[in-house]
Amino acid sequence: MFEDAELGHSIDKATYRREVPPLRDALLEAQFELAQRKDFAVVLLINGVDGAGRGEAVNTLTAWMDSRYIETNAMGDPSDEERERPPMWRFWRALPPHGRIGIFFGNWYTAPIIDCVMSRKKHRMAALDRSIEEIRRFERMLAEEGMLLLKFWYHLSKPAQRKRLKSLERDPRLRWRVTKQDWQRFKLYDEFRAVSERALRHTSEAHAPWIVVEGVDERYRNLVTGKTVLEGLQARLQTPAGARAVTPVPAAPPVDAKDVINTLDLTRKLTDARYGGERERWQGTLNLLTRHKRFADHSVVAVFEGNDAAGKGGAIRRVAEAVDARQLRIVPIAAPSDEEKARPYLWRFWRHLPRQGHLTLFDRSWYGRVLVERVEGFCSEYDWRRAYSEINDFEEEMTRHGIVVVKFWLAISKDEQLRRFKSREHTSFKHFKITDEDWRNRKKWDQYVAAVCDMVDRTSTGLAPWTIVPANDKNFARIKVLKTLCTAMERELD
Amino acid sequence: MFEDAELGHSIDKATYRREVPPLRDALLEAQFELAQRKDFAVVLLINGVDGAGRGEAVNTLTAWMDSRYIETNAMGDPSDEERERPPMWRFWRALPPHGRIGIFFGNWYTAPIIDCVMSRKKHRMAALDRSIEEIRRFERMLAEEGMLLLKFWYHLSKPAQRKRLKSLERDPRLRWRVTKQDWQRFKLYDEFRAVSERALRHTSEAHAPWIVVEGVDERYRNLVTGKTVLEGLQARLQTPAGARAVTPVPAAPPVDAKDVINTLDLTRKLTDARYGGERERWQGTLNLLTRHKRFADHSVVAVFEGNDAAGKGGAIRRVAEAVDARQLRIVPIAAPSDEEKARPYLWRFWRHLPRQGHLTLFDRSWYGRVLVERVEGFCSEYDWRRAYSEINDFEEEMTRHGIVVVKFWLAISKDEQLRRFKSREHTSFKHFKITDEDWRNRKKWDQYVAAVCDMVDRTSTGLAPWTIVPANDKNFARIKVLKTLCTAMERELD
Repeated sequence: MFEDAELGHSIDKATYRREVPPLRDALLEAQFELAQRKDFAVVLLINGVDGAGRGEAVNTLTAWMDSRYIETNAMGDPSDEERERPPMWRFWRALPPHGRIGIFFGNWYTAPIIDCVMSRKKHRMAALDRSIEEIRRFERMLAEEGMLLLKFWYHLSKPAQRKRLKSLERDPRLRWRVTKQDWQRFKLYDEFRAVSERALRHTSEAHAPWIVVEGVDERYRNLVTGKTVLEGLQARLQTPAGARAVTPVPAAPPVDAKDVINTLDLTRKLTDARYGGERERWQGTLNLLTRHKRFADHSVVAVFEGNDAAGKGGAIRRVAEAVDARQLRIVPIAAPSDEEKARPYLWRFWRHLPRQGHLTLFDRSWYGRVLVERVEGFCSEYDWRRAYSEINDFEEEMTRHGIVVVKFWLAISKDEQLRRFKSREHTSFKHFKITDEDWRNRKKWDQYVAAVCDMVDRTSTGLAPWTIVPANDKNFARIKVLKTLCTAMERELD
Repeated sequence: MFEDAELGHSIDKATYRREVPPLRDALLEAQFELAQRKDFAVVLLINGVDGAGRGEAVNTLTAWMDSRYIETNAMGDPSDEERERPPMWRFWRALPPHGRIGIFFGNWYTAPIIDCVMSRKKHRMAALDRSIEEIRRFERMLAEEGMLLLKFWYHLSKPAQRKRLKSLERDPRLRWRVTKQDWQRFKLYDEFRAVSERALRHTSEAHAPWIVVEGVDERYRNLVTGKTVLEGLQARLQTPAGARAVTPVPAAPPVDAKDVINTLDLTRKLTDARYGGERERWQGTLNLLTRHKRFADHSVVAVFEGNDAAGKGGAIRRVAEAVDARQLRIVPIAAPSDEEKARPYLWRFWRHLPRQGHLTLFDRSWYGRVLVERVEGFCSEYDWRRAYSEINDFEEEMTRHGIVVVKFWLAISKDEQLRRFKSREHTSFKHFKITDEDWRNRKKWDQYVAAVCDMVDRTSTGLAPWTIVPANDKNFARIKVLKTLCTAMERELD
């Protein structure tokens, strides 16, 4: 969930100066319409890592908009009055009326996350899950009541947070902002990250998705915040007044040119000589792992996705070579059968889950819904948006049962794809591999990139992370796949 | 949740013989249309108390319908194959295709409920809640995928279950059906009931409500099952083919003439002499309770609902007389203010929650949504249907914070209401109490009764039960209210 927010996004001064004025105009206009229509309210939740610029982002946003119609609530420790009522009372009483925007620093996520990170109790995760369940019901109710919920998570990687705290300390004017508590919390960074990820994953829904914002660069932070609020408002204002359907909130718009795909180093290579040795090493490791005593209680589900001609088939074969065929099943996913169409979407994948001691390799997978089905319009926007959380649930069920879930996106450059397409057309035994559809998909390259970025953003989790494999060089890609699979299995079996 | 299923419903033979043939025809016709359209599947979950006739109800239903298109799954202990996959795998693989009906005995509720009842672990409720959360997400996904979910809970009261097990044992032909396990489970009846209630309450949603069926009388059981399936199917078949919106499932239709209102003994009385003594006693008790040391950490929320002219005001005054005015607040609920209209529905009630050591008496309440707003069409069906679970959440938040929640429905007969209306018209100082609206509401008497029955069915919980007060006699009603309030407070403060 945090991949995109660790890429080092930034916006240069000139771009910022150019983009802010029209953004402000548009924000004010949307806010004016909101105030005129008065048929729904907006709630902004502001959460994230200390030092990630939450306050600055909100200050900038309120400066850009008409602050008379924005209510900012900084919720610290509860007052007497508040402690004597159920915990949610303080938030209920601060809910903005229709036509207004309510900003909540410190909100219904704060205490459950912090309590879970700080707790030493054995059942702290169960307590977190219970809070999450209540939050989900609360937010669903708000959405049903017509409220627009925008939930921002300002993120810093661990090194970035350290750097940020140190630089604040060095600045005599800002030193006061770094407290002992900040450093104490920093020590718990990994724990905080894991707990937050769980909370975010379980509360990202079509009507209330999390928007994760990298907090390093001030201009980037501000632009993402402003543009996301604008897009959310505009989308909601397009639904007719009085319509009460729960509407999906659009994803954060891209603000600079960086994404998880184009920041990938596609030049990485492995010589044929080194490849031979590495392949032997990792195929050997994999074979031993599949015969490991403990593997009898576990299984593997591996997902292979990637650009057309990125070499999924070749990578899958290199895995298959290392495994006893009786333990392995390769499931190619094409159009669903009649039987499959007659059931819920995930049924066609559930049916292929391996027994213990077995591996299933999916050549394309359930991610089709948020890739090809999204881009080609084979399903409604509502359906692919809800798929993210349904997929996360599915994968969580697998991992909890001891299934090792690995997911590969094999990425090649547009030029490399062209080269491979042409070679397929000119080589008779590869000719069957290239179709008109491949050429049609290629024309939608950018839409697919956007879909891949959203997919990684929403479904790369601690339990089932995405591995994005630079695949211009087949040797490099195949070894990366073998090695990642072995590492994931070792972690589970040790 | 189980009130209605303990009233002793039954159907006589003649009625049954008359009603079954047209019901069978209609069921077959609906099933045929389902099979023709093939755009959604139906899942029936069969759960409940041992001995409540689950098997018989399903056997009858399948005999009535075309059993070729019904798949019955009796899920006992998982097989090897199943144990080696995540727990939900066995249910996934048994999901029926579009056009068919899948019946699940032993389903995703069975293990979580039984495990929780049997467990001695401290955190068993947290484990149950986690399972409930997963079930909610799973069922929501099924509904989004277009599936019609009908969840039946066959219920027996504790004495009824004992009687049923004994009568089975006496019958030589049926003795085999009563096992040691049944009697062991019977010892856990109260625990089982509490855990089941929690599970049912948290998983009753507009798109997947529980239908609780009293299991004593075979004919009644069969008719409710058949009619509910029919109404659910017919409602779903009315939505156009291919429409994917999550549709609410209708409530179970009334099958015999008994309900929680008309089984009430309205003749109960208290002489003026006895009333004086009782009133003194309970007002005194109440006063002491409000000055109890522990009440400083608690508070009271009391809801007064009832027929027009049932005497809500009088009952409230008798409570108020016993309490220091500084601790008490009476909140009359009329039409919402502009401020209130601009926020989510429950906001206007949250704002009046008392501080600790205080009592708030609501003269009408949040139940307006499922009573007057439902009957008068002031809100959409979708909105009042989702209100039940939102209200349960709200009340659970209160009780968990130590608030004592008591809810009174003051019930009078139609004749008694007429008498009181006329007396109000003829008594000058009461004249202000009677309006044209009262006469209009009276014309919808039956609709209000249906709404009250549904309300009690769905929102009377162990944490916040409804007390239905026979109020033809004001003395009796007032004492019943005082006594119930005192008992609830004593339970919390002791």
